[in-house]
Amino acid sequence: MTLFKLTLAYDGTDFEGWQVQSAERSPRTVQGTLEKALHALGGDRLVRVSAAGRTDAGAHAEGQVVTFDLDREITAEELVRALNGLLPPDVRALEAALAPKGFHARRSATSKLYRYVLDTGPVQLPTRRLYAGHFRGDLDEGRVRGAAELFLGRRDFRSLAAAGGSVRTFVRDLTRSEVSFEGKTLVYRAEADGFLRQMVRNLVGGLVAAGSGTRSLAELKTALEACDRRRWPPPVEARGLTLVRVSYA
Amino acid sequence: MTLFKLTLAYDGTDFEGWQVQSAERSPRTVQGTLEKALHALGGDRLVRVSAAGRTDAGAHAEGQVVTFDLDREITAEELVRALNGLLPPDVRALEAALAPKGFHARRSATSKLYRYVLDTGPVQLPTRRLYAGHFRGDLDEGRVRGAAELFLGRRDFRSLAAAGGSVRTFVRDLTRSEVSFEGKTLVYRAEADGFLRQMVRNLVGGLVAAGSGTRSLAELKTALEACDRRRWPPPVEARGLTLVRVSYA
Repeated sequence: MTLFKLTLAYDGTDFEGWQVQSAERSPRTVQGTLEKALHALGGDRLVRVSAAGRTDAGAHAEGQVVTFDLDREITAEELVRALNGLLPPDVRALEAALAPKGFHARRSATSKLYRYVLDTGPVQLPTRRLYAGHFRGDLDEGRVRGAAELFLGRRDFRSLAAAGGSVRTFVRDLTRSEVSFEGKTLVYRAEADGFLRQMVRNLVGGLVAAGSGTRSLAELKTALEACDRRRWPPPVEARGLTLVRVSYA
Repeated sequence: MTLFKLTLAYDGTDFEGWQVQSAERSPRTVQGTLEKALHALGGDRLVRVSAAGRTDAGAHAEGQVVTFDLDREITAEELVRALNGLLPPDVRALEAALAPKGFHARRSATSKLYRYVLDTGPVQLPTRRLYAGHFRGDLDEGRVRGAAELFLGRRDFRSLAAAGGSVRTFVRDLTRSEVSFEGKTLVYRAEADGFLRQMVRNLVGGLVAAGSGTRSLAELKTALEACDRRRWPPPVEARGLTLVRVSYA
């Protein structure tokens, strides 16, 4: 058995998220699609993969990392080529490497970087509708930047965690919370040691609330510290979200 | 009757190009889709629209301009809103204005700007596969820039015109032929008083031939001056092409 670390990119548009779901319902998921390709490659044995981040339905990845054991003699280069022959066009293997014993895509990760792209203004360009969220209005750049700064640091992010899932702690260390404006498009980058369910979409929901004036920075700070998700503004849509990079020590 | 000038954006992925085709075959075209929406809006009368540029199947637009007569009292703002309620999500009306008598989307245009995006390297990100071409290799930046400069100026571009169509002259004035590199992505912008069939895709085909070394700059220059399309390298795919802007005096 060989333990592989694989970097993966996908277009989340036609997937119901990363994670394989119950046997009765079997929607198209990225995990299921990858496991099917590895099964075809590895022979009879079922291959289970672990991912660094379980992306939502509609969210994308440019640098998802997965680990799995493969019962087959194959080099990392051959694995990438073989997988790209088996995977559909909306999933691509970017690179592979042998992983050291005990390495795990999620548990060994030291940080993850997500990017969210949000178009503003009355009408969104059709060529952007699958890869950017849309806010039908204008955002105040200064207030958006002020909100992004509020989020920085190590704190309890319970106010930004969607229900469901099981985590031991809601404390995360947000080391990067960076806004840039490209014309009428807001690009937000968030990096942390880990993210809670829908956390990035909720962070951007906070930026929109601050930038559109529905919440003051002081109200947003109070809602963040309240540790109560009913206090937080609604999340933005998944389609603007991309898992960019996972870092390891 | 009121003459309108409408600026339109579309995602060309699911269209067989701009132009309405023969009655026997009725593929989904942008022109047909827009005319159907205008028909629903304008009552019984059939509305025919004229476009500044007839984009290829798979090519996109951020600033296509069309003109048409509408037999209905409606302001430009109402027209945009009503059309966006009738059009599918892959076509959006951006803005409308009353046009002066005799104004024509194509004949009145003084220049058009196209952008071509080409990803290079072994594997293309799935999120880019609908909006960027792909060259599986590396391109030499200096030679690509050298080729882009060769194209500039007023000349006979017959070597770069696809067969079919009827034009009086192959002479076009290319006033902008500009390359930028963003990581492993080449972005090319071409502006001219008009373009021949597949001309931008052929221009980029020339950049690829120069950058990959299959043609020297001298050979490319000879092929350009030969006025013979069989001498020119193959065009790149339509999916990387976007009509960005049409200018009027």
